[in-house]
Amino acid sequence: MPDAPRLLTNLTAATLTGDAPYGLVSDGTIAIERGRVRWIGARADLPSELAGAEQVDLGGRLVTPGLIDCHTHLVHGGDRAAEFEMRLNGASYEEVARAGGGIVSTVTATREATQEALLAGALRRADALIAEGVTTLEIKSGYGLDLETELRMLRVARAVEKNRPVRVKTSFLGAHAVPVEYRDRADAYIDEVCIPALRAAHAEGLVDAVDGFCEGIAFSPAQIARVFDVAQTLGLPVKLHAEQLSNLGGAALAAGYGALSADHVEYLDEAGVRAMAGAGTVAVLLPGAFYTLRETQEPPVRMLRDHGVPIAIATDANPGSSPLTSLLLAMNMGCTLFRLTPEEALRGATVNAARALGLDDVGTIAPGQRAELAVWDVEAPAELSYRIGFNPLHSRIFGAVQ
Amino acid sequence: MPDAPRLLTNLTAATLTGDAPYGLVSDGTIAIERGRVRWIGARADLPSELAGAEQVDLGGRLVTPGLIDCHTHLVHGGDRAAEFEMRLNGASYEEVARAGGGIVSTVTATREATQEALLAGALRRADALIAEGVTTLEIKSGYGLDLETELRMLRVARAVEKNRPVRVKTSFLGAHAVPVEYRDRADAYIDEVCIPALRAAHAEGLVDAVDGFCEGIAFSPAQIARVFDVAQTLGLPVKLHAEQLSNLGGAALAAGYGALSADHVEYLDEAGVRAMAGAGTVAVLLPGAFYTLRETQEPPVRMLRDHGVPIAIATDANPGSSPLTSLLLAMNMGCTLFRLTPEEALRGATVNAARALGLDDVGTIAPGQRAELAVWDVEAPAELSYRIGFNPLHSRIFGAVQ
Ligand SMILES: [Zn+2]
Ligand SMILES: [Zn+2]
Repeated sequence: MPDAPRLLTNLTAATLTGDAPYGLVSDGTIAIERGRVRWIGARADLPSELAGAEQVDLGGRLVTPGLIDCHTHLVHGGDRAAEFEMRLNGASYEEVARAGGGIVSTVTATREATQEALLAGALRRADALIAEGVTTLEIKSGYGLDLETELRMLRVARAVEKNRPVRVKTSFLGAHAVPVEYRDRADAYIDEVCIPALRAAHAEGLVDAVDGFCEGIAFSPAQIARVFDVAQTLGLPVKLHAEQLSNLGGAALAAGYGALSADHVEYLDEAGVRAMAGAGTVAVLLPGAFYTLRETQEPPVRMLRDHGVPIAIATDANPGSSPLTSLLLAMNMGCTLFRLTPEEALRGATVNAARALGLDDVGTIAPGQRAELAVWDVEAPAELSYRIGFNPLHSRIFGAVQ
Repeated sequence: MPDAPRLLTNLTAATLTGDAPYGLVSDGTIAIERGRVRWIGARADLPSELAGAEQVDLGGRLVTPGLIDCHTHLVHGGDRAAEFEMRLNGASYEEVARAGGGIVSTVTATREATQEALLAGALRRADALIAEGVTTLEIKSGYGLDLETELRMLRVARAVEKNRPVRVKTSFLGAHAVPVEYRDRADAYIDEVCIPALRAAHAEGLVDAVDGFCEGIAFSPAQIARVFDVAQTLGLPVKLHAEQLSNLGGAALAAGYGALSADHVEYLDEAGVRAMAGAGTVAVLLPGAFYTLRETQEPPVRMLRDHGVPIAIATDANPGSSPLTSLLLAMNMGCTLFRLTPEEALRGATVNAARALGLDDVGTIAPGQRAELAVWDVEAPAELSYRIGFNPLHSRIFGAVQ
């Protein structure tokens, strides 16, 4: 990347800092130097020492922080289109399961897939996100459910970052489901597979955070706590799939570990909201899964607002409950299905998503922040969540102007 | 386009003909000559006189008919993002109306827009559809509500076809809403504006079909009938926005005129279904509007199936109730929200959409049909509606290989 400062000029910036709506700066200029924002403000206020820098005229376009997809299962083998079709042709859950459907089919396909095949599939999906201005994305393990495959998934996640101009944060999700070979022995699975795999993955530098799925069909709070205890001893932050289909108190459990985020949270109650507010835990809303599963219990958005819990929005990109690879569409769904405001949706896919990943140098446009930006062919930021299935990205900036 | 036949080889074809699911042909070959399909079948059966033709290897990909979006309001001025944002910030419908929102704002913006500006906006949206494999799209008037602007909208629709490799069918929709200058005088609007504008547009060759909006907030069945009577004398086919928010018997009325389609039809009853079945009228489902308006009354899909009414799916692309420009997403919504099967969704965006436009030479892959095809990077046709916000188009064929 160039060492000399460059100026982005003739733009409106949604900085998402300060108190103004969207932190909007009109007729703005952004100075970028060595991959960081050096200066952002109104053109008239540009410091004289920057006035001579090379300029890129953005034609009055809107600039936002690069989008951040803070919850994805982007790495997996196979797809579940056949199961989708069976269901719509009237097959029962039992018939689908007998045909090898459900998460088991994804685990089988992922275990069978080579690292190269997993990477090719993940890159295809990552490219769809990148094409929409995503500059940071989170990727979870959790379809291996054995040590070897969990590590392979995380290596692929790291390889996505090496192969594309995008920042990747990984989450170890060994506690995603109980594999068939441990049916009715979830505790043994935690002891014999999940925790050893976590230690091995951490030793290899593959783990940025530790995640789990706390639900009747997955793991109990006590089982999750044992995984989180290990995370704590390893110095790793935690996050949790919590209160998606019922209220087990997972969000409060996670908050007790100072979790970065509790995700889904449709069934979150006020005690859980208070615990999250106290711990600074982000609520990551995943409307793609809500939509696909035709859920009707909406997350308690008003309560989250009232208690000051930061709200993020993510795709939950996964082959079963959310085969969604458009963060803009997740933002629209957040507004349409959960009644977020367009500003909450944009903050949810930038500054609050960064926070859900433990990042503080992306997600806003401010001096010292990484120069990871999205440039849009829109007149107002609300258009980003208003449109459905339309990508108004003009260009993306990832360290340097691209 | 080249005169000599060319062969598309190494493909799976979803012909949507015959009785097999999707009309699938494995290891297929398609011979194209002078913009038409000359032959389609299994490679082994290729007639010897075609064996020497130039070949294009499609690498085992899936080929479907080009997609057909049979219900759009693609031509309009302005957008409604500000109104979307106001509503989500808690504004009442009255406050939005006082701020100039609602369809009135689109009518005002459309009346003020030049033909060039309307075309630029429409092309941007058409490009999004074309990028997803759409080869035919319908465009309605209906935001002018005065003679001059209704004609301008239809001229822009024709210009879309001249500027892009896509087939456009127009619908005159003067009976879309009562403009403010005719408030409480809908009958006078029909007589003084709608019918004269229809005659003028027809005289200019701008009208392929006549549409209307039959609803309490728009026009009564009796008013629609007067417009349809004129359409009939002009020899123009009709279609109708019917039974979207209530049941006024619009679909049966339209069927009485041998309508090509009745669209929306959430509140359609069995009498309406029977009338449509008898007339061969297509039911065009518009899940984008259902989703955006958070409707709960689903169209009577089972009844439509039971009575053999053909089902189509379209975007309803419009700035108010469905700012959706992804037909693939409409297909996914058709499956997820209305429980269509993936095959019904694909037929709904191809062969049945063609029928809703009165076309019989597109929408299937068969000898004599226009060579308007979509080539997909998928393994099975169900993937087209399974994925959300992902575009697996490999290439599009519009007369010639592109
Ligand atoms: Zn998840
Ligand atoms: Zn419409």
